[in-house]
Amino acid sequence: MSVVDLIERKRNGGRLEAGELAAMMRDYAAGAIPDYQMSAFAMAVYFRGMDDVEIEALTTAMLESGRMLELGHLGLPRVDKHSTGGVGDKVSLILAPLVACCGIAVPMMSGRGLGHTGGTLDKLESIPGFRTRLTLEETAAQLQRLGVAMIGQTAEIAPADRKFYALRDATATVEAIPLISASIMSKKLAEGLTGLVLDVKTGAGAFMTRLEDSLTLAKTMIALGERRGCPTVALLTDMDTPLGDACGNALEVEESVACLRGKGPADLREVTLALATEMLLVGGVSEDVADARARATRALDSGAALEKFRALVAAQGGDARVVDDPHAVLPQAPVVKPVLATKAGVVQRVEPRVIGRAIIGLGGGRTKVDDVVDPAVGVVLHVKPGARVEAGQPLATIHAASESARQEAEYALRQAIPLGTGTPSRRPLISHRITARGVEELPGVGAH
Amino acid sequence: MSVVDLIERKRNGGRLEAGELAAMMRDYAAGAIPDYQMSAFAMAVYFRGMDDVEIEALTTAMLESGRMLELGHLGLPRVDKHSTGGVGDKVSLILAPLVACCGIAVPMMSGRGLGHTGGTLDKLESIPGFRTRLTLEETAAQLQRLGVAMIGQTAEIAPADRKFYALRDATATVEAIPLISASIMSKKLAEGLTGLVLDVKTGAGAFMTRLEDSLTLAKTMIALGERRGCPTVALLTDMDTPLGDACGNALEVEESVACLRGKGPADLREVTLALATEMLLVGGVSEDVADARARATRALDSGAALEKFRALVAAQGGDARVVDDPHAVLPQAPVVKPVLATKAGVVQRVEPRVIGRAIIGLGGGRTKVDDVVDPAVGVVLHVKPGARVEAGQPLATIHAASESARQEAEYALRQAIPLGTGTPSRRPLISHRITARGVEELPGVGAH
Repeated sequence: MSVVDLIERKRNGGRLEAGELAAMMRDYAAGAIPDYQMSAFAMAVYFRGMDDVEIEALTTAMLESGRMLELGHLGLPRVDKHSTGGVGDKVSLILAPLVACCGIAVPMMSGRGLGHTGGTLDKLESIPGFRTRLTLEETAAQLQRLGVAMIGQTAEIAPADRKFYALRDATATVEAIPLISASIMSKKLAEGLTGLVLDVKTGAGAFMTRLEDSLTLAKTMIALGERRGCPTVALLTDMDTPLGDACGNALEVEESVACLRGKGPADLREVTLALATEMLLVGGVSEDVADARARATRALDSGAALEKFRALVAAQGGDARVVDDPHAVLPQAPVVKPVLATKAGVVQRVEPRVIGRAIIGLGGGRTKVDDVVDPAVGVVLHVKPGARVEAGQPLATIHAASESARQEAEYALRQAIPLGTGTPSRRPLISHRITARGVEELPGVGAH
Repeated sequence: MSVVDLIERKRNGGRLEAGELAAMMRDYAAGAIPDYQMSAFAMAVYFRGMDDVEIEALTTAMLESGRMLELGHLGLPRVDKHSTGGVGDKVSLILAPLVACCGIAVPMMSGRGLGHTGGTLDKLESIPGFRTRLTLEETAAQLQRLGVAMIGQTAEIAPADRKFYALRDATATVEAIPLISASIMSKKLAEGLTGLVLDVKTGAGAFMTRLEDSLTLAKTMIALGERRGCPTVALLTDMDTPLGDACGNALEVEESVACLRGKGPADLREVTLALATEMLLVGGVSEDVADARARATRALDSGAALEKFRALVAAQGGDARVVDDPHAVLPQAPVVKPVLATKAGVVQRVEPRVIGRAIIGLGGGRTKVDDVVDPAVGVVLHVKPGARVEAGQPLATIHAASESARQEAEYALRQAIPLGTGTPSRRPLISHRITARGVEELPGVGAH
């Protein structure tokens, strides 16, 4: 087998055999295939796609390049959630402890922020002392004790994916649905799950801005999960607007704690409960939606999820007082100032990409994987699209490291939150539920 | 400027500014852009193409990455020919000395064989002592003395192209018309030409098998030449069948000498004279086709071209007795045996790719750039498509290094020369003439 021949075949619209893809990824992980051939291959896949058998073979090859979490001894269903990412998406921080209260083990493996989207690891690490780098053995032990662990992708998990993803990131080949699907699923399947729930974002701030691409991505990952014996369900949720109000690492932890106390923004609570409901269903601890929803709501409103979060933070070395007094524990930005509306009007949009980039400008995000993140900075939004505001009313509050950074962010936020006269049309917060059986359009769960 | 952004823009069907392409190629040549980004970029160009301005910018950038031949002092028109390559194409060996007899300097820079196609450098080097690695200074001096030099691409000529081509060869991105055009033209324009004639092959053995692709390639290169002040003309010639009879390095030199003596296969003579005619026209030494054709024919039939070839071989260190007794000077294969027809029939095809690969099998070609070539081996064809043969009649003669190699080649040749009952349709030997003014279909010059 010559790699050039495989690239050429894919370039010409042909398909690769499972054995060929397995050998290719094995040789690539071992350093026997150079990056320049894999990046050309990735670009050919971008244009030509892959069929289900190819995607499964690629996923399996990446999965088998590393170790798996062995969690059979837990005797519990094991369910994780994956979000395709967005701005203000702190759902994992609430969801993981919540679901762990309901008899499901949650071995949650998350990523860091890159570009305009945030990352769960960065948020958690804004809690002083919080360690996200657990070994697989530590993770298994914590899951046994606590039912939940929130970690980063270790070097042992799907190293071929890790290497390939870094290459794709540098070669504009991330946005290929077969490659995204294989990348996500190779890591998720390595967690040894009995079920998986996907939060596929769609809209201006999502990785996939077009609804049809988001649906295709969801279907592809679901097919992969099912073929590999891991029942998978997806919700399509809105990312035309940031989720919740807080955007920025420590600010999002603070908002998560509020949500765990039964407060916090309604959209955040709704998406969290909807995903929790799916996790309970796919985990088999509830028979129907009503029961699952009721159990999830109870776990949240009873304070059980908050206590589980406290235990989680403590178990992973973090300052657990964050649960009682986030403001005292979390790093605070020195410059905090609102952005006031300069005229009356209706909020036309709240642009997540512009806000995400403003957070990078504040020092709270990354453009390169090795950028250092300032956990304290960010933005708290006070309006959603469609809101009527008066002149002088605050649109958002900026948390900045310096006055000059704040001014730049203010400029960006005024672009991100245009005021006008019309009533903007809004996507439903949760628009579709996708399972192996098909796509179900939801009856407008909460206008976003 | 971020390279990822440039790749992404091309991937999305956008265009790059001339300055962006210039910076990209400069940084790539300097090692500041890694191969894996350039190969992804090349694959994006394969799918998205480039417009004329982009192609010119890429060509200029590659051209300016190296030195140019300075030949203004010659006081002569300077014209080269480029062929897109095929099997049995030894035209350059006859054409360069021929045209040099007609008051045109021919600074011919050629390549080596790769895959099923042969290369002029390999053919010349089958003449004992022949040096194709001249410096630019040696080349200029020889052109002044002799009017002709036949050299390889030196390290000084378009080094960015050299590096990029090697990368494309390893990543299945050679077959992109903008990249092929820029690669060829960056080298040709470095020769400081006043005119260029392209022999664009089309058909089963050509780099471009489809007529429309060959036409696009020709038009793209012509536009490039014209924009850069180098009048360029192309002939589309047939490569459904090898050109001439001999295929293999020393065998092709022998056939070239025969042609220089006014003998040799008719198709080879015809393509050579047609290209010579174009070179005299574009070089401005003839006013019209009839005059150019007459002068070229005279140079060939008078023996002037033969004597120029003798002087060329001697000047570049080769054994000039090859002109008088090729058989005595050129390396000879130990096993020489005909392939006989096993039944009567009509030759349906003579497949150039199969023959090209058979020559690689005999050791006379390359699959990798660093393969060593056996100059003595090859095949001499005795039939063309449409020929009626009787059982026992020779179809070809194999020149092999061993009996086992000969047997393998015989097997391949029987596949390459199928006998049947119908009369195969044949492409005209020279089907189109393409200039900056348009495409002219030729009235069937010589059925091939």
